[in-house]
Amino acid sequence: MALMVGARVLARNLLRPWSRLPDAVPGRTGPAAGGGDGVRCFGSPRVLVETDPAKGVAVIKLKNPPVNSLSLEVLTEFVISLEKLENDKTFRGVIVTSDCPGIFSAGLDLTEMCGKSQAHYAEYWRAVQELWLRLYLSNLVVIAAINGVSPAGGCLISLTCDYRVLADNPKYSIGLNETLLGIVAPSWFKDTLVNTVGHRTAERALQLGLLFPPAEALRVGIVDQVVPEDQVHSAALSVMARWLAIPDHARQLTKNLMRKPTADRLVKQRDADIQYFLQFISRDSIQKSLRVYLDKLRQKKG
Amino acid sequence: MALMVGARVLARNLLRPWSRLPDAVPGRTGPAAGGGDGVRCFGSPRVLVETDPAKGVAVIKLKNPPVNSLSLEVLTEFVISLEKLENDKTFRGVIVTSDCPGIFSAGLDLTEMCGKSQAHYAEYWRAVQELWLRLYLSNLVVIAAINGVSPAGGCLISLTCDYRVLADNPKYSIGLNETLLGIVAPSWFKDTLVNTVGHRTAERALQLGLLFPPAEALRVGIVDQVVPEDQVHSAALSVMARWLAIPDHARQLTKNLMRKPTADRLVKQRDADIQYFLQFISRDSIQKSLRVYLDKLRQKKG
Amino acid sequence: MALMVGARVLARNLLRPWSRLPDAVPGRTGPAAGGGDGVRCFGSPRVLVETDPAKGVAVIKLKNPPVNSLSLEVLTEFVISLEKLENDKTFRGVIVTSDCPGIFSAGLDLTEMCGKSQAHYAEYWRAVQELWLRLYLSNLVVIAAINGVSPAGGCLISLTCDYRVLADNPKYSIGLNETLLGIVAPSWFKDTLVNTVGHRTAERALQLGLLFPPAEALRVGIVDQVVPEDQVHSAALSVMARWLAIPDHARQLTKNLMRKPTADRLVKQRDADIQYFLQFISRDSIQKSLRVYLDKLRQKKG
Repeated sequence: MALMVGARVLARNLLRPWSRLPDAVPGRTGPAAGGGDGVRCFGSPRVLVETDPAKGVAVIKLKNPPVNSLSLEVLTEFVISLEKLENDKTFRGVIVTSDCPGIFSAGLDLTEMCGKSQAHYAEYWRAVQELWLRLYLSNLVVIAAINGVSPAGGCLISLTCDYRVLADNPKYSIGLNETLLGIVAPSWFKDTLVNTVGHRTAERALQLGLLFPPAEALRVGIVDQVVPEDQVHSAALSVMARWLAIPDHARQLTKNLMRKPTADRLVKQRDADIQYFLQFISRDSIQKSLRVYLDKLRQKKG
Repeated sequence: MALMVGARVLARNLLRPWSRLPDAVPGRTGPAAGGGDGVRCFGSPRVLVETDPAKGVAVIKLKNPPVNSLSLEVLTEFVISLEKLENDKTFRGVIVTSDCPGIFSAGLDLTEMCGKSQAHYAEYWRAVQELWLRLYLSNLVVIAAINGVSPAGGCLISLTCDYRVLADNPKYSIGLNETLLGIVAPSWFKDTLVNTVGHRTAERALQLGLLFPPAEALRVGIVDQVVPEDQVHSAALSVMARWLAIPDHARQLTKNLMRKPTADRLVKQRDADIQYFLQFISRDSIQKSLRVYLDKLRQKKG
Repeated sequence: MALMVGARVLARNLLRPWSRLPDAVPGRTGPAAGGGDGVRCFGSPRVLVETDPAKGVAVIKLKNPPVNSLSLEVLTEFVISLEKLENDKTFRGVIVTSDCPGIFSAGLDLTEMCGKSQAHYAEYWRAVQELWLRLYLSNLVVIAAINGVSPAGGCLISLTCDYRVLADNPKYSIGLNETLLGIVAPSWFKDTLVNTVGHRTAERALQLGLLFPPAEALRVGIVDQVVPEDQVHSAALSVMARWLAIPDHARQLTKNLMRKPTADRLVKQRDADIQYFLQFISRDSIQKSLRVYLDKLRQKKG
C-alpha cells in the first residue's frame, strides 16, 4: 500500500500547490498500541494510529512525552498518517487524542524555534502550516477527544477538528495563550479561532492569552461538549457515529464551502507567511525570550 | 397600475444587472383570500396577497399544496408579488407565511431539477437566485410568520426576512438540511445562514443538515421569537409595528449596508453560479439520487 | 516634551496616510482635575487627562457639558491627548470616561453638521474618522468606564475600546440609534458593531436603532461587564491591571492582527467616505430633519 499512497501523494501534491511536505520522514508502519483483531496498523512511534476498519474510524494518538510538543517529526508523522487514512477508502473518520496523561498537546516545540538555522525555521514553519491545512480541510470527519490541557498549538489542532469533546477536569484548560509567552498567534491561528468563537471573543481571548477551563470553554464555544474524563473517548465515538450518518460527499463539499476561503488566505501567501515567521523568530529579543523560557523549563525538570 | 409597475420593473432591470426575470408569468390579479373592505387584492393562485393599506402591511401566503414546494411558477409569482408591493408606495412591510397547514415550505421543487433540460435547470436556478436577491435586499420590512416545518429552501426564505417568528410546535423544525439528501447548500444559502447564526453554528448545522425544533432554533438564533401556534400572526404584526416605527429611508439604507456585500457576492458571479448548478445537477449520481427520493415520496402519497 | 511629541506626530503622519489632523488645536497643557502628587497633567479644557505614572495608567474624562457632544474641538483635543499618551512611554493604558453626570457622550455634535459650509463638514468628518482610527488601533490598553447614557457616537467610542464596563443604571442605555433620527450609521460604525456583537445582532440593532439597557447590553455583548454605579471606575482599574499583565508588544501586535483589516477598509477609502458624507449631509431633507431636531432640543432646554 505504501507505494500506492506515495503515488497518490505525488498526484495530490501536483494539484495542491501548498502541499510540499518537508523532507519526508518515511511513513513507518509500526504496531498500533492495543492493536487487536481486524485492526489495521500503521502510524509511527510518535503518532500512533489505531484503526477500526469495520466502523471506518481511526484514532490518532499523539505520543511525544512528556508534553506532546509538536516537533518537526511529530508534525511530519501526523500529516503522513492523516494522508494515509484519507487515501484509504476504508476510513471515513478519525478521532485525535493524546497518549500522554493529562496533556493533549503543549503546542509548537519551542526547541525547533530557538538556536537553529533559518533553513530549519522555514522547514519547521512549513510543516506547521501543512498540518493546519491538512486537518482543517480534511475530507475525513475529524473529532478532537481532548483528554488533557490544550494550550497554543494544542488548541489549534482542536480548533481544526469538526467537533471538540473536552474532559471535565479543571486542569484541562484550552486556549491560544501565545501572548503570555510574549509571542503572537499567526493570522491563520486567529482566523481559525474567529471562525469558532466569533470576532469579539477571539479578540479578547487572543490579547489576554486566555486559557479556558472546561465550563467556560463550553460557554464561549471553544469546545462543543464537556464530559466526565472517563467518557471522552466514548463521547467522541458517539459524535462520530452521528457525523458518519451524513453522506460523505455532501458533507465534504459543505465542509469545504465553509473552510476553503479561510484556508485559501494562507495558501495564497504561504511563502510570505514563512518569511514573516523567519523575521519574527530571528529577532534577538525573541530568541532571548525563548532561551530564558526554555532554561526555566529545563530547571523545572532537573 | 399593471403597466406602471411594468415600466418600473423595466427601469429597475436596467439598473440591476442581476434582475432578469424568467419568462414572465403575467402578474395575475386575483381575489385575495379573506379580502374584505379596503383590502387591495393582487397576488396569484399560488402566492396569495392580502393587504391592509391602512397599516401599509401586506401578507404573502404561499399556497402550493401539499408542501408549498418552490416550483418555478411559485418563485416567479412570489417575485412579481413582491415587486408590486415594493412599487406601491402604500406598502411598507410584508409578512410571509403559509396557507398550507403544518408546512411553511418544503423548499426547492425537486421535480424542477430532475429529468428536465439544461435550459430548464438554468431557468429554474435563476429564479431561485432572483427570489433570494429580491427578498434579502427588499426595501420592505419583511417578517417571517413561520407556521409550519421549514427545511432547506423554506428555511432560506425565512433567513432572508428581517425577523423570524416561529410557532411553538415540536414538529415545526427549521434548518438547511441539504446534506441529508446528499446535496449541498449553495454558497449564498451558506452566507445567509452564517450572517444569521455565525460561522461555527452554521458550519455544524450545514454539515449535519440539522433541523432545529423551536426551542433550539431560538437558542442558536435561527429564529428570533417562538410563540404559541395561534399567536404567530399577531406576534408578526406586533413586530411589524415596531419595525415600521423607524423612518423607512434610514432603515432601508441600513439594511442595504448590512446585506449588500453578501448579495453582491452572488450578483458578481451569478452566471457562474448557474453553470456550477448545471454541472452539479446534471451528474448521473445526483439525478439518480433525486429519482430515488422522488419515487419514495410518490409511494408515500400513493 | 511638546516638541518631541510634535516631531513624532510628524513622523507618524508620514507613515500613516490617514493621519492628517484637522487644523490643530494646540495641545494645551492644563491642570488635571484632582491632579495630586506624582500626577503628570496634560489634557485640555474639554478633554481632561488624569495620570497615574506609577501605574502607567491615564484617565481621559470628557467634559463638554451638558451632554459631552463630540464637537470638532472635543474630537481634536481627544486625538491630541491620546497621541501624547501613546508617545509617552510612561503610559500603557487609558480609561475613557465622562465628567458629565449621567451621560457618557451623546455622540456626534449635530450643530457641526447643520447650516455649515462643505469645507466644515469635510473637516468635521475627517476628525470623526481620525478619532475612530486612533482609538480602534491604539497601542494602549483602552478601557471604557461608561458612567452614563451612551448613544450613537458615544457608543462608537465605547466599541473602539478593548473592554467596556457599564454602570448598572437602567437609564444608561447604549447603542447605535442613528436610524431613530432618520440618519444612517457609517459603514465603519457598522463594522465596529459587527466585530463586537456579530452580524445578526448588529443588523437588528442598527435597523431598529436599539438602545440596550445594562442587562440586555451585557447579554448581547455590546458591553463586557455591568457593575454598580459607584464601582465603575474601580472595576475599570481592575480590568486594566489584568490587561497590563500581558507583555505590551505581543498584545499590541495581536490587537493589530484583529483590528487592522477593519481599519484598513476605511483608510483605503477615507476621502470617498468623506465625499459620501458630504453628499448625504448636504441634502435638503437631511438638513431639514436636523434643524427640526435641533430646534426641539433648544426648546427643551429653554
